[in-house]
Amino acid sequence: MKTFWLNWVRVAAVASIAVSWTAPGFAQEPLPSWNDTAPKRAIVAFVERVTNQVSPDFVPPAERIATFDNDGTLWAEQPIYFQLVFALDRVKALAPEHPEWQDKEPFTSLLKGDLKGALAGGEPAIFQIMTVTHSGMTTDQFEKIVSDWVATARHPKSGKLYTEMVYQPMLELLAYLRANGFKTYIVSGGDVEFMRVWTEQAYGILPEQLVGSTIKTQFELRDSTPVLMRLPEVDFIDDKVGKPVGIHKFIGRRPLLAFGNSDGDQQMLQWTAAGRGLRFMGLVHHTDAEREWAYDRQSHIGQLDKALDEANARDWTVVNMKSDWKTLFPPAAGR
Amino acid sequence: MKTFWLNWVRVAAVASIAVSWTAPGFAQEPLPSWNDTAPKRAIVAFVERVTNQVSPDFVPPAERIATFDNDGTLWAEQPIYFQLVFALDRVKALAPEHPEWQDKEPFTSLLKGDLKGALAGGEPAIFQIMTVTHSGMTTDQFEKIVSDWVATARHPKSGKLYTEMVYQPMLELLAYLRANGFKTYIVSGGDVEFMRVWTEQAYGILPEQLVGSTIKTQFELRDSTPVLMRLPEVDFIDDKVGKPVGIHKFIGRRPLLAFGNSDGDQQMLQWTAAGRGLRFMGLVHHTDAEREWAYDRQSHIGQLDKALDEANARDWTVVNMKSDWKTLFPPAAGR
Repeated sequence: MKTFWLNWVRVAAVASIAVSWTAPGFAQEPLPSWNDTAPKRAIVAFVERVTNQVSPDFVPPAERIATFDNDGTLWAEQPIYFQLVFALDRVKALAPEHPEWQDKEPFTSLLKGDLKGALAGGEPAIFQIMTVTHSGMTTDQFEKIVSDWVATARHPKSGKLYTEMVYQPMLELLAYLRANGFKTYIVSGGDVEFMRVWTEQAYGILPEQLVGSTIKTQFELRDSTPVLMRLPEVDFIDDKVGKPVGIHKFIGRRPLLAFGNSDGDQQMLQWTAAGRGLRFMGLVHHTDAEREWAYDRQSHIGQLDKALDEANARDWTVVNMKSDWKTLFPPAAGR
Repeated sequence: MKTFWLNWVRVAAVASIAVSWTAPGFAQEPLPSWNDTAPKRAIVAFVERVTNQVSPDFVPPAERIATFDNDGTLWAEQPIYFQLVFALDRVKALAPEHPEWQDKEPFTSLLKGDLKGALAGGEPAIFQIMTVTHSGMTTDQFEKIVSDWVATARHPKSGKLYTEMVYQPMLELLAYLRANGFKTYIVSGGDVEFMRVWTEQAYGILPEQLVGSTIKTQFELRDSTPVLMRLPEVDFIDDKVGKPVGIHKFIGRRPLLAFGNSDGDQQMLQWTAAGRGLRFMGLVHHTDAEREWAYDRQSHIGQLDKALDEANARDWTVVNMKSDWKTLFPPAAGR
């Protein structure tokens, strides 16, 4: 995962932004949190065409595969990818067992709260952080660790659980697609085992419908009990050119609809667009500095530059978060 | 795939066996091609317990994952794995484009029909055969090649299409499980892209419900059109200890029921058995030299030795093909 995590190194400043949340309505129409603008119309028109049995664009349900990037597409990704927050939190949690970290970078800086200093070590520093936090345990142990973190960790700006920072309009889109016979998949650069723990509850996406980056695991018998050990070794990076590879390997069908938000999704959208017949390619454009964050071409997180040019040139759907979405996040449960 | 294909080297003699086919009846009971013996009773009892909402063994539908080995479990595998037959046929088809093969082993022997001589080259010979037949083309091209082969190639002994050499009792088991809310998966050492072409039609198993060995693929733009090139490089071997790894990577859930037929399936069954609550572990034992083949501990194809011992010791279900199955193969369509 060294390559994938490289751009985390470039993360420096933490954005300080006032985020406000708006509760969605309970309309019966599809996509109630979407304004009645071009993206919503394009989505509804597309779904109606591919599901209408007398339409020349009809697609049988088995072929209705929809793939979604996760970070920045289904949930927020600022000021740093949430999986990196998890890793940093784990370093703090593990510190008492590692007195040697007091004098060993990147841990020394991290434990002082100096993220920038820690990441100054570049790729090897990131790799060390990811290795100690993501490997060396069984898959069951890792699941428990992620599960505990997801249940308690809160975003520094919003104070919400991370799983409350999922985009309400995208939840509605997932539900709308499933109601129309689509199978919804995540295709993310994130660690597939990190995501699996919470995506069913957060998105209604089943564990077997995740494509993501993987580290190697090894089957071992411990006192006759089989376990899978997570090894400090990259298996597959599901980002950029890796996304079509991952889709083909895990799903074996080309998506009918694909949604992303960054240049890391460009090849997934190209792969989708190259399929026969009608296809839908969408990008979430983070334009909403007031309710969330505004970033694109210059951002170190979720950079959207080349993919935006291609989307504009090829008339793919670009969601302007500020003007196309009525609300961003679901109401916090019971708070 | 070198390791995986190694045991193909050991294949020497081609069994010469008279195979007879019996058409199944059209009973309404589940599993009509199964005799009313212990395996059928165990399967039905298991399914009833995990699907009965008032049973302490009840399992929600989302967790009803069933995994099946392919070669020797869902379709036959003698006298040599059918994917190897495909590779050998492809060598013959490609020979006109490769005049140099006239003087280059293992191709020289192969083209003379001397399989044993060709495989005398051991692992490197197998690797050469697999490389020239399974890589160097796009995934779309490979799909077409496999599709054409599957539609026309016939088994040397039965004269049937290979997809007609699927086991009727297992087709019924797959259908029975799906009717009871199970998701049915293949977890095979075979190349996942070789299988994907025909498993939906043959078994009703969707392309996205296959776990198998993979070779690396690479995303490329050709005149702006994206393709995935199949590279001559092993990505993942889904056999033995690889099966639990593949299950966890691709499905992310532990099977509730798993069926295999060889030592290559032992770890998958161990992994299944180690899950909480009631689980079902099954092995197909090839005992039917008359209707098919009889082989186990000494066989170079589908060796069943250690897994049989463990199955007996742990009271896993072992299907005696000869006495537990009324019929083996479905009636040939329109012949």
